[in-house]
Amino acid sequence: MIEDKTPQRTSISQLGEFGLIDHLTKNFEINQPSTLKGIGDDAAVLDFKDKKIVVSTDLLIEGVHFDLAYMPLKHLGYKSVVVNVSDICAMNAKPTQITVSVAVSNRFPLEALEELFAGITLAAKEYNVDVIGGDTTSSQKGLIISITALGEADAEEIVYRDGANSTDLLVVTGDVGSAYMGLQVLEREKQVFLVNPNSQPDLDAYTYLIERQLKPEARKDVRTLLHALEIKPTSMIDISDGLSSEIIHLCKKSNVGCNLYEDKLPIDPQLINVCEEFNIDSTTVAINGGEDYELLFTIKMEDFDKIKGNPNFTIIGHMTQESEGIHLITRANTKIELRARGWNALSED
Amino acid sequence: MIEDKTPQRTSISQLGEFGLIDHLTKNFEINQPSTLKGIGDDAAVLDFKDKKIVVSTDLLIEGVHFDLAYMPLKHLGYKSVVVNVSDICAMNAKPTQITVSVAVSNRFPLEALEELFAGITLAAKEYNVDVIGGDTTSSQKGLIISITALGEADAEEIVYRDGANSTDLLVVTGDVGSAYMGLQVLEREKQVFLVNPNSQPDLDAYTYLIERQLKPEARKDVRTLLHALEIKPTSMIDISDGLSSEIIHLCKKSNVGCNLYEDKLPIDPQLINVCEEFNIDSTTVAINGGEDYELLFTIKMEDFDKIKGNPNFTIIGHMTQESEGIHLITRANTKIELRARGWNALSED
Repeated sequence: MIEDKTPQRTSISQLGEFGLIDHLTKNFEINQPSTLKGIGDDAAVLDFKDKKIVVSTDLLIEGVHFDLAYMPLKHLGYKSVVVNVSDICAMNAKPTQITVSVAVSNRFPLEALEELFAGITLAAKEYNVDVIGGDTTSSQKGLIISITALGEADAEEIVYRDGANSTDLLVVTGDVGSAYMGLQVLEREKQVFLVNPNSQPDLDAYTYLIERQLKPEARKDVRTLLHALEIKPTSMIDISDGLSSEIIHLCKKSNVGCNLYEDKLPIDPQLINVCEEFNIDSTTVAINGGEDYELLFTIKMEDFDKIKGNPNFTIIGHMTQESEGIHLITRANTKIELRARGWNALSED
Repeated sequence: MIEDKTPQRTSISQLGEFGLIDHLTKNFEINQPSTLKGIGDDAAVLDFKDKKIVVSTDLLIEGVHFDLAYMPLKHLGYKSVVVNVSDICAMNAKPTQITVSVAVSNRFPLEALEELFAGITLAAKEYNVDVIGGDTTSSQKGLIISITALGEADAEEIVYRDGANSTDLLVVTGDVGSAYMGLQVLEREKQVFLVNPNSQPDLDAYTYLIERQLKPEARKDVRTLLHALEIKPTSMIDISDGLSSEIIHLCKKSNVGCNLYEDKLPIDPQLINVCEEFNIDSTTVAINGGEDYELLFTIKMEDFDKIKGNPNFTIIGHMTQESEGIHLITRANTKIELRARGWNALSED
């Protein structure tokens, strides 16, 4: 589908490796005071003074993590940055820099790479992170994006996965499951398109879900929100693989159990409608769907009053002793063991 | 050829993504005082105190940057780390941490990944860098390795590409061209093997060249050597794309010209013999061959006495005014314009 959208096609080999890198990176600005030297030497040079540095990295592979049939390249570039910035936010740190490496097969014209980098540039601007380095090369097949994100925080601000206590409350930002259902809608439209390329999809009923899949945002605002409420989470993680998977991560790392309440799950009305249409249980989607990039965290019980009723946060459960296990408490008040059935990049299906 | 070497084959999908990451990363030790938290959270946490931080990243793609027909996976793991550490050394900084992301197709059994990580572990130990994060996922085709390296240095120690002056001397460590000829020998043996799989190659005459290709080392010693000599380079770069390409980088960034002397090029005797056998000009190989991972740097003319006769360093030329251009002065005392004909990852051949 890329071919349809880019009438002009310039072969990337015309520019050569260095020419291509120069061309794609010339719009990147340096805005962070901690960036002393960005792109253009053997390495970037940074100075975080008395701050601690957090570092995270992710690899995105065409056909595994994204499908260019419905993922516009500009959105893909944006999302690639978001996914990494989200990991920095999940440490309660402030994102500051990223490196971006891209490998492409020769089927991609320069114009396609420009679209990808336009999305990266937009996200870098939105999240105020400097692009300080990277690598651009050819691949044997498809598009590969590798991003490393850096952030800064004071030592006492950083929140790990292992700090939850057995009496803590479990809190999530935003809503969950929408990005997964957005993907289901897009997959269905792709199948329709393959059968009848002339069909014009009406996606009005799905806009929120599709946006959550194609243009997710990292919750960089949560750090500020929590700071204003004078709450420091005891543990935190971002939701990339699915709520149940992330809850299990927090519990295992913190040696605690958890009760998650079905009736507390923050689910968007559009998700409920579309789940009915697809005949899927919306709780299953909310628990197992991934890629929401919301933050999941635990707080001390005594912080309850500070957070209750806040529209940015939903208390969805509480931690327990490790021996009590990890459970979903259904609306019918039955207790079901929570299992990670999130998306697995290494499954053979 | 991997299949021959791994009689035991465990499918990576058996372990699942998190199981695989745990399995492959469990041997990584934390040795750097600047690593506060390594693998196991959303991000690693580092503290460089009053040091500056240097960051570099590289992407290695099967079929583009390496060929598993003659590159054993353990060597590949080792070399992937070396390539990145070399960039940190080229800033005159001390390598401290790396992140490692790997994508593999299902044709790779777990035992192959274990070999790769054994090489990464060995290099991390050799260069005393902590592996602080990464990502392991599946690819549609082949093996993809993305490494980001971090290092530390005092502000006044860091050497950029743009500091060369028109009266500086040009110096290189070790010898050049050997890694390229090692690749030519391996390529020839691969062709022989394809024609006659029973042939037993006798590679005794090529051991040094092959080792330079399969097990290159980053020059982490140079920082200490120069410090002891009380020399601070004015500019520096590592030789990955070829000597001529790197000289041109230094000249362009520093706005100077250069005279490189053919008779000064440090060439190993084995390289000369093999170039004769292959009927290739050894100067061409020394100038254009890449992947030596030696350091190329400029020093003030007044530092000449400190460095002359030192077996670790060879003065191969001097910088000039920018208007004089960038030239090779041949043994016959003719002046040839230097062009970058190094390996280009984006060429269409």
